[in-house]
Amino acid sequence: MENLLKNHIRELVDITTEEFTVIKTYFTLQNHPKKHLLVKENHPVNEMFFVADGLLKCGTMDNSGKEHILQFATQDWWITDFQGFFRQENASLDVQCLQDCVLFAISFENFESLCRDIPKMEHFFRVKSNLGYVALQRRIMSLMSDTAKERYEAFLRQYPNLFQRISKQTLANYLGVTRETLSRLQF
Amino acid sequence: MENLLKNHIRELVDITTEEFTVIKTYFTLQNHPKKHLLVKENHPVNEMFFVADGLLKCGTMDNSGKEHILQFATQDWWITDFQGFFRQENASLDVQCLQDCVLFAISFENFESLCRDIPKMEHFFRVKSNLGYVALQRRIMSLMSDTAKERYEAFLRQYPNLFQRISKQTLANYLGVTRETLSRLQF
Repeated sequence: MENLLKNHIRELVDITTEEFTVIKTYFTLQNHPKKHLLVKENHPVNEMFFVADGLLKCGTMDNSGKEHILQFATQDWWITDFQGFFRQENASLDVQCLQDCVLFAISFENFESLCRDIPKMEHFFRVKSNLGYVALQRRIMSLMSDTAKERYEAFLRQYPNLFQRISKQTLANYLGVTRETLSRLQF
Repeated sequence: MENLLKNHIRELVDITTEEFTVIKTYFTLQNHPKKHLLVKENHPVNEMFFVADGLLKCGTMDNSGKEHILQFATQDWWITDFQGFFRQENASLDVQCLQDCVLFAISFENFESLCRDIPKMEHFFRVKSNLGYVALQRRIMSLMSDTAKERYEAFLRQYPNLFQRISKQTLANYLGVTRETLSRLQF
């Protein structure tokens, strides 16, 4: 499990095994069962999670009871309610396990300490955040200018392995279409 | 003009006047007239811009000739095609001056050097990027779950000063509604 986190960091910065031995002390290894709510809307957001195994979703329910999914996270991805975490506010989203999950969790205090104590990690999280920003920018432009069919096809291209692991309703809630519309898109 | 950039950085990190004297050498001060295209779709993205004065938009035209606006930028904001800049790819968006602009521009090479040379600046851009990520996350959730009227009202609350400075058509292209729908929302 630890190798996953170490290799993930090494994709962007050179860290020695000794450095990783220090880095990992900022994280806790957690196991959570399917359906567990890691972050609850209107509650404090204590941790950010690196996914070693499993699958999660992050989203919210609107006043009419319709679910909107912002993000999925599978192995090698980071997830939390980033607004609540980075601004240390109550969550505006739920984060829930869609499968049993193994996660490396880091508290906000440890996150800030890690960035301060180990400059390579500040660099890692700066570049990671820049790339995350780009991914969200792409999602916005897709929501604004692509048809539902184009968004569906882009999802299949971008996340070929996710498609088999989530329900049709969950996928529809991510694409922003009804279950019926999704069925039509699949033919 | 320099004080704007210095004070903006000081909102997040303590830098001395001497440190800023070094930091500002990584930037060039630029003046661009209204309508100037700073970044062109399908062209390299050489620079990221801090706005000292003026107003800009960032967006794209779809195949049917409809414009979609991702972001505005006014004094104290950063703008570019971030996907093109951070990934050093050709732009997928245009960045255009809506008014005469005074900008501090930084090349990708200088941006990476500045982060490497001055750890306080890596911290600044890491935190800035984290907060930018949060703002985009909010925009996505708004596009997915808010009505056009809610998005319009949120824009007025969030950017009260921008409303007077952009055309109705430009605002409609940001909100993702037609000019006619926008007129109905305003009553």
